[in-house]
Amino acid sequence: MPALDVAGEFETIDKLLAPLAHPDWARGLRDDVAALPSRPGYDLVLTKDALVEGVHFLPDDPLDTVAKKLLRVNLSDLAAKGAEPFGYLLACQWSERCGWPEREAFAAGLAQDQATFGVHLLGGDTVKTPGPAAFSLTALGWIPAGQAVSRAGARPGDLVFVTGHVGDGRLGLRAARGELSLDPERIEALVAHYRTPTPRLDFAEAVRDLATASIDVSDGLAADLAHVARASGVEVRLNLNVLPLSAAAQAWFADRVDPQLSLEELASGGDDYEIAFTADPRHEETLRREAERRLVRLTRVGEVASGSGLTVLYDGQPIVLARQGWTHD
Amino acid sequence: MPALDVAGEFETIDKLLAPLAHPDWARGLRDDVAALPSRPGYDLVLTKDALVEGVHFLPDDPLDTVAKKLLRVNLSDLAAKGAEPFGYLLACQWSERCGWPEREAFAAGLAQDQATFGVHLLGGDTVKTPGPAAFSLTALGWIPAGQAVSRAGARPGDLVFVTGHVGDGRLGLRAARGELSLDPERIEALVAHYRTPTPRLDFAEAVRDLATASIDVSDGLAADLAHVARASGVEVRLNLNVLPLSAAAQAWFADRVDPQLSLEELASGGDDYEIAFTADPRHEETLRREAERRLVRLTRVGEVASGSGLTVLYDGQPIVLARQGWTHD
Repeated sequence: MPALDVAGEFETIDKLLAPLAHPDWARGLRDDVAALPSRPGYDLVLTKDALVEGVHFLPDDPLDTVAKKLLRVNLSDLAAKGAEPFGYLLACQWSERCGWPEREAFAAGLAQDQATFGVHLLGGDTVKTPGPAAFSLTALGWIPAGQAVSRAGARPGDLVFVTGHVGDGRLGLRAARGELSLDPERIEALVAHYRTPTPRLDFAEAVRDLATASIDVSDGLAADLAHVARASGVEVRLNLNVLPLSAAAQAWFADRVDPQLSLEELASGGDDYEIAFTADPRHEETLRREAERRLVRLTRVGEVASGSGLTVLYDGQPIVLARQGWTHD
Repeated sequence: MPALDVAGEFETIDKLLAPLAHPDWARGLRDDVAALPSRPGYDLVLTKDALVEGVHFLPDDPLDTVAKKLLRVNLSDLAAKGAEPFGYLLACQWSERCGWPEREAFAAGLAQDQATFGVHLLGGDTVKTPGPAAFSLTALGWIPAGQAVSRAGARPGDLVFVTGHVGDGRLGLRAARGELSLDPERIEALVAHYRTPTPRLDFAEAVRDLATASIDVSDGLAADLAHVARASGVEVRLNLNVLPLSAAAQAWFADRVDPQLSLEELASGGDDYEIAFTADPRHEETLRREAERRLVRLTRVGEVASGSGLTVLYDGQPIVLARQGWTHD
């Protein structure tokens, strides 16, 4: 069953991936393993997400952006925990459409993002698949011992914040599918967000120091806050009226006939890759100052109460969402 | 594009995978990340391999054995470096055929192997795919700082050893495809080796202490020794006449009309998951004692010379292999 293209794997590793290897710990990608020295005083934080063509990215998405998205969705998980990324392992399942130019594009996307985010390739695997292309990545980061922020620390009385904008991931997917009629520059901005979201690493330290619970917004703000509510054993209240919308999302929203339904769609859309977190009200001013200093938009979107589950409010009234979020399974 | 089966992912995690989670570091699989304390004096060794249905396993392989193979091929990489595994991250891409009973079987296979090998699940991802099922795994192990054995340390004058048997992976694949006519118990033994190879963790410590270079036999003994030759900048000589064959392989071999071609096939077959390594001749007796003590078969199959590349000998004469090994790309 192994394929006959003997050259493919070794050439891909030698020419495209080895230049991305961590200078000290990846053994030039020639040794099946990476070996990391211990870093006393720090915990190693690990996360692993996979992207499948036709499920998590579109068959016509350029492979450089697929590579970037793969890395970024994993870095987003580290950012939400307050960790600082340094490396990753990669498993590529190349489909028929992944010839040499596509593999070059994939590696070029990784090279750019390695420079942007200060990470290096540590190892992995490259194989062919008769099915759709798929990629999985294990991202690694450091955090001072014991300080990784969990989903489980929200307390009644905490406030709920979200970085950046809500719903651009969902609108970006629809824009990439050609479902939205907006100005070309709006479409472009939304597609860019869908294809290459920005992990909020610039706010990870503030989250680490001040958040009681946090999560990256990948399933949709409502679904992800429901995860926090469940893990923390509290009620999380989300106020739809104050969702932070990007300029493109505002333009889309302005044409809607049903504002409530539209906000529900944005709060239920996946792929935002912002950080949603809870914090004690006494830290609100510090958080706002940190956000301003780092040019990160920060919005208070709700609060934590004793109780359970997610409560979504619109015009001050609890409503029931048609669906809380998207799942890829 | 996210699928509509909202329950699938969460139920799979909660009911099937969470019971496998590391008690301290996996956060119950509910937090997107694992956080590992540092272990001063030790390096963390990481490896990541993927298995794709139709490429690395057969569409009718039971999913409990697929799960075991996935874990074991990664543990084999750690064993060859001398590392002691403790955990893994897992990304599942479930195909249409992976209903609840198949997922249960997959988790049951992991549970059994966790007990066998002393490892725990640390985190990961579970998604659906419209293509063939595929799984990737990142395995983690500890090794005393700086002691991970590389491919690059072989020196002229070293001897070449291999644990266990050579060629059972290749014959096992052929047996699973129904291509071999042997006694049922031979067929069963070969298929079992193909589906659930045994990583040589019981010999990892000896390799760590005494090997100059090592590699796990996944592409085929000849191809993997060629990797060692290249990485070490030496010539590796492999003597086909002394290949250690299992009872089943001996039965197959007895019926061949061309012994040389048959040995070439066994030395070029992938999926053995034994350890091939080089060591100074003065350690040969210690290695043999260690092997005996651990009930591991150990065979001296060649030697290292100054020069480059792999030289394969049959009846004392150098021969050219039709192909050195299998690749999955």
